[in-house]
Amino acid sequence: MAATGAASTDVENREWYVASYAPTGVPNSEHIKLRTVSLSLRADSIPDGHVTFQVLYVSIDPYVRTQLSGLDDGLSLPQIPLGQVIRAFGIGKVIQSKDAKFSEGDIVLSRICPVSEFGVMPSNLLQKITPAIGIALPDYLSCLGMPGITAWVGIEKIGNAKAGLNVYISAAAGGVGIIAGQLAKVKGCRVVGSVGSDDKVKLLKEECGYDDAFNYRVETDYDAALTKYFPNGIDVYFDNVGGKMLEAVLNHVNHGARIALCGMISEYNKVWTEREGVRNLLNMVGKEVMMKGFMVGSYYNHFEEFIKEMEVYLKEGKINSKHKIYNGIGSFLESLASLFSSSNVGKVILQVTP
Amino acid sequence: MAATGAASTDVENREWYVASYAPTGVPNSEHIKLRTVSLSLRADSIPDGHVTFQVLYVSIDPYVRTQLSGLDDGLSLPQIPLGQVIRAFGIGKVIQSKDAKFSEGDIVLSRICPVSEFGVMPSNLLQKITPAIGIALPDYLSCLGMPGITAWVGIEKIGNAKAGLNVYISAAAGGVGIIAGQLAKVKGCRVVGSVGSDDKVKLLKEECGYDDAFNYRVETDYDAALTKYFPNGIDVYFDNVGGKMLEAVLNHVNHGARIALCGMISEYNKVWTEREGVRNLLNMVGKEVMMKGFMVGSYYNHFEEFIKEMEVYLKEGKINSKHKIYNGIGSFLESLASLFSSSNVGKVILQVTP
Repeated sequence: MAATGAASTDVENREWYVASYAPTGVPNSEHIKLRTVSLSLRADSIPDGHVTFQVLYVSIDPYVRTQLSGLDDGLSLPQIPLGQVIRAFGIGKVIQSKDAKFSEGDIVLSRICPVSEFGVMPSNLLQKITPAIGIALPDYLSCLGMPGITAWVGIEKIGNAKAGLNVYISAAAGGVGIIAGQLAKVKGCRVVGSVGSDDKVKLLKEECGYDDAFNYRVETDYDAALTKYFPNGIDVYFDNVGGKMLEAVLNHVNHGARIALCGMISEYNKVWTEREGVRNLLNMVGKEVMMKGFMVGSYYNHFEEFIKEMEVYLKEGKINSKHKIYNGIGSFLESLASLFSSSNVGKVILQVTP
Repeated sequence: MAATGAASTDVENREWYVASYAPTGVPNSEHIKLRTVSLSLRADSIPDGHVTFQVLYVSIDPYVRTQLSGLDDGLSLPQIPLGQVIRAFGIGKVIQSKDAKFSEGDIVLSRICPVSEFGVMPSNLLQKITPAIGIALPDYLSCLGMPGITAWVGIEKIGNAKAGLNVYISAAAGGVGIIAGQLAKVKGCRVVGSVGSDDKVKLLKEECGYDDAFNYRVETDYDAALTKYFPNGIDVYFDNVGGKMLEAVLNHVNHGARIALCGMISEYNKVWTEREGVRNLLNMVGKEVMMKGFMVGSYYNHFEEFIKEMEVYLKEGKINSKHKIYNGIGSFLESLASLFSSSNVGKVILQVTP
């Protein structure tokens, strides 16, 4: 096994770093680059309380793009310093450990895993995973991971989605949206999603239990589309895109509607003054609408409650996990750019080690 | 006394009605007109369960303008049908009553009082007022009335304003804003308001206890103004204006800030597609901001709780009531238009009967 063999030697470790910031547009190979660094995995070169691991999977999420703009943005996440390795949620397998709580072969999760082939990290930044029977490792980066709890917070904690309510999800085939809609279905809601391709419409309706779905690239008059798909108005909106879609939704909200603002993928590649203005916020007054932005990190104290609920849904097959896997460390840039092209279905994951 | 004399006869009753809608701009004499109608106040011409009264005071509030556009707007209030009399919050003195619960001379309040000199209404739409010692009748249309509870809902129920927080009030010398800021001061907050004249700045600072205030017509770079007046950011924003001011605020909110959307006076005279778009809603995500629109009518079940609290503040002089009184039924149009011209200080009230 390669990982074990590596434990007694140095490795050539490939890692992605920030070469220059991308204030607008989709980051490309001028902005983030792959380099090879020599990393010693010899036992005597690892500090106490540290663990070395081989990276298995990295989660590819839109927030990472917002850390590459070199600007203050609405997510208030720190920018990754120039020259430094990019970090993301990731899963690894322990090669060796200088902490008694971790052993060779353990599977570990980190929220700031380097996007690289190998990592050395303080053990207190790692969490051990014991995969439940019937649950695949990538699920711990999707349904049971950050996208899963993000969907859960928006649908349950902010949206307060209840049986019979009309729920709308934008970017509904994305890593978060695909879970959010299925969660709302479990709660007994009527759920409609918008997506960027006809294939995704089909997927949501046929495999994810959505009541309906539409392609926003075909039905470009959002107002007309929402009139058609929500004859009884919208009670809960899980917003992943912002801009013109959020504005259209505000023309279709019911009294007392809740809007969970999760992130706005339509807006990440623009500076804020160039973003789409929402002109009808006055509708929030007459309809007494509540809108709340959230960062999932503020809800990690609910993680156990979330996992308990979600594991049941997964095991009972009530929630269907969908992954788009990119293979090899070299595919990171392509996988990140794919988030902005509507080319994926489900959670985007980079499989670093085959 | 004129009112009593009127009880046995017919009166020439002057009333304001809607001649044509004003979709944009400030309504003028083409849109709302004064007419004289003959009204019988003879006992035998009044139905059982009805009360006739002479109108003493009418409350002049921005929402009335939104009922004159002939359009659906974001407040979702019904338009007043063409040809019909305009109605508003008002106080009257009973001339005669066909309901045992009301007697001649009683002071009554109605939320749909006709903007006229006399009225005949079903008694179940009237509420008897027994003015407390030291509290003037107009206070029941301001601090103790709809503007008062509106301010209270925004500051307490939505804003959750607590000691030490930084509170910002726009249209801060208006009927609602002037009470909202004083309420926040009572709670121990640091309060800054924006207004449309230097005289109002002076008033807020010298007579209403505001920590600071600025003239948005002079300090037109709202972003720079908020940087200056909120070096520690904004925790609670009571929004009366919307548009560019709301956008500027979203660049200065603290983590977890609350925004109470009360109404948007900067936007009422425009159709929604011409309204100012707010481009930086993404800031609500990173800062986990909650924004909630409200219509005070949904909170009338809290009226007693509110009155109990507010009467104490008024009697203790902790809240200073400010009225701008227009005299005579003929002044209604002028008083309504004044809401959009920054010409008033405090609550605008029309005194119908001298």
